[in-house]
Amino acid sequence: MRGDGTEVLARATWSALVEPGDAVAGTLVALLGAVDALEWVRAAVQHGPDIAGLEDRHGPLADADRRRLTKGLARWAVRLPDCDPRRDLVHLDRLGGALLVPGDPRWPSTLDDLGAEAPFCLWVRGEPDLGAVLARSVAVVGSRAATSYGERVAFDLADGLTAEGLCVVSGGAYGIDAAAHRGAVARGGRTLVVLAGGVDRAYPAGNARLLDTIVGVGGALVSEVPPGSLPTKSRFLQRNRLIAASGQATVVVEAAWRSGAMSTAHHAARLLRPVGAVPGPVTSMASAGCHRLLREGIAVCVTDVAEVRELAGSIGSGLVAGAAAARSADDRASRRQDSLDPVSLRVLDALSRRVPTEVDRVASLAGVTVAEARGAVGLLELAGWAVRRGGGWVAVTIDTS
Amino acid sequence: MRGDGTEVLARATWSALVEPGDAVAGTLVALLGAVDALEWVRAAVQHGPDIAGLEDRHGPLADADRRRLTKGLARWAVRLPDCDPRRDLVHLDRLGGALLVPGDPRWPSTLDDLGAEAPFCLWVRGEPDLGAVLARSVAVVGSRAATSYGERVAFDLADGLTAEGLCVVSGGAYGIDAAAHRGAVARGGRTLVVLAGGVDRAYPAGNARLLDTIVGVGGALVSEVPPGSLPTKSRFLQRNRLIAASGQATVVVEAAWRSGAMSTAHHAARLLRPVGAVPGPVTSMASAGCHRLLREGIAVCVTDVAEVRELAGSIGSGLVAGAAAARSADDRASRRQDSLDPVSLRVLDALSRRVPTEVDRVASLAGVTVAEARGAVGLLELAGWAVRRGGGWVAVTIDTS
Repeated sequence: MRGDGTEVLARATWSALVEPGDAVAGTLVALLGAVDALEWVRAAVQHGPDIAGLEDRHGPLADADRRRLTKGLARWAVRLPDCDPRRDLVHLDRLGGALLVPGDPRWPSTLDDLGAEAPFCLWVRGEPDLGAVLARSVAVVGSRAATSYGERVAFDLADGLTAEGLCVVSGGAYGIDAAAHRGAVARGGRTLVVLAGGVDRAYPAGNARLLDTIVGVGGALVSEVPPGSLPTKSRFLQRNRLIAASGQATVVVEAAWRSGAMSTAHHAARLLRPVGAVPGPVTSMASAGCHRLLREGIAVCVTDVAEVRELAGSIGSGLVAGAAAARSADDRASRRQDSLDPVSLRVLDALSRRVPTEVDRVASLAGVTVAEARGAVGLLELAGWAVRRGGGWVAVTIDTS
Repeated sequence: MRGDGTEVLARATWSALVEPGDAVAGTLVALLGAVDALEWVRAAVQHGPDIAGLEDRHGPLADADRRRLTKGLARWAVRLPDCDPRRDLVHLDRLGGALLVPGDPRWPSTLDDLGAEAPFCLWVRGEPDLGAVLARSVAVVGSRAATSYGERVAFDLADGLTAEGLCVVSGGAYGIDAAAHRGAVARGGRTLVVLAGGVDRAYPAGNARLLDTIVGVGGALVSEVPPGSLPTKSRFLQRNRLIAASGQATVVVEAAWRSGAMSTAHHAARLLRPVGAVPGPVTSMASAGCHRLLREGIAVCVTDVAEVRELAGSIGSGLVAGAAAARSADDRASRRQDSLDPVSLRVLDALSRRVPTEVDRVASLAGVTVAEARGAVGLLELAGWAVRRGGGWVAVTIDTS
């Protein structure tokens, strides 16, 4: 990292240039560094991509990687002229905000579990020491269309968790999110709001006063996109991964069968973070998602502050209460694999952990076309499941302990 | 079994002579047959126990077995003069009832899983073909102090299960039990009431009309004690094991943290039957027991008829939904072992499955006194965990598949 601010400017640029969760950009930045990766993109837009230069650092690129890179470049080229990190930083400064980048002592290392999908930087309004804020934290999430029962439970849980010194993380939405933030604020504690749009935008507008209050009492609003960015639908979905990664555990208070809160729970499970679900009446559709998480063994049943604290305390100890205790490392790895498409999964199964296998042979073992195998190993490499070795590919053992 | 009715009379006598769940009596009857075991007891009461005659059949008795037998005999001797199975059968006949004994084609084989604690016979009012009635059955149990939410859920579940041809088994109590029976009756189906006292006694009295209706629409009231017997506290506890053994799965709709329904759920788990728990508001103490069962991984979350049917359908298939899927056979064996006291558990751990170990050596391995080891192996034998072989003891492999 360069000390002259170019790293910070480059990461601010990346956060404006690409959409949240872009693993191709993440991999490029991890490979070349934020500054050089940006230089490489700028040169590529002007003169075409320097694939040879990239392969010097990375090794031969699979066809699928090239395709993804080309597609990414085409998108980034459109935005590049409009990127103005200095303007965005001035905007942030006017809000009294701070920009955090990895390596900053205040950077929350809990986000590093996101790998190639980690944010390039965090635009923060309020308390900038997110590392300290998130050292002990629980995400409390749920439906916008919450019942008074759900809002009451969310408020009480957040109140109690805050009293015990834990930071409540949520998304600032109506319903469960707002009730959780309010419970934390009522207890005089700091709470973190992860926004899908810029930190200058109170979204939803009806919660503007709540968001201001949160900043006022030592909490923070954070976003991975610069001030002025709109909270689009895809950014909401990506925002859920940030909430899941911010909390040491995630608790779903109420959720419909399919909902954003369910997506947050699944993100947390993929990150191998404990997930809790608050039960409710079986006659309430607002609890159907929670019951689904319990039935599928993704969440542990939690009914009070002590049980949530136990859930959060179980990270790293290898001991998770209830159903979660029964999850073996294999189980967790297989749930993580659930995020792969069927072809990638078959290709992954075909890879040895020791002996490199050539793509043609992989295709034959997996029963897919050579083109499909090539695409899949590229995807698996990006996701950290496979690496190139000696002209072939080997599977990576993912540590799920 | 003798065809002249002496077997039936002997079993009717046993059901009046000993308290439900008496494993010493159960073991004696299993060893000698109901008729000879009764003769042996009658002779023992008059002339003292013929231990030598018993050891001819059984092998040498451990001191603990002798102690238990002596204690049992002392209790049985008090009741023996009052036992009059012919009077009880006349009483049953007046009620239009039937007495079922093992070997009768109408006997529900599902009760055989209770081993030495199986009932000697069943006193039935209503439909006598319990084998047919219980071929597809679910126990639906819960608190007497139920909420209107719980009663509604119990009614609806029973209604839906009955519509799908399953028999709902419960205990005829106020609250959840009554709501479950009512749901079955409302759907015009037969439901089974397992009573703690005699089938002539409507207990509780407030449910007398409901119990009559159940008999009237083809259901049945059953008890393992003769007509006229009081529903004592210990008989209620033992009744719970019969309910658990009668259903192919047990569903707890509402239960306080400690309650009879929780005991039924634990009986079902010990019998390796699937257990379901209906969630409810975390603010309702009536659901606290259900949430506890979910957290402890004893029960699967069930919210509707389809999920209960799936639970009941999972018996024998080795595939149980959700958290239950994670239970390995070892898990289940260890939960079954949870019913053993600490000394017995250590003694069991000290036993080999192949090489017989003498009691002195067992004591040394387990770190208990010789007297404790002797007591424990006797207990383990009664419970089916250990058997005598060649002057020593071996552990029995319990099939938990």
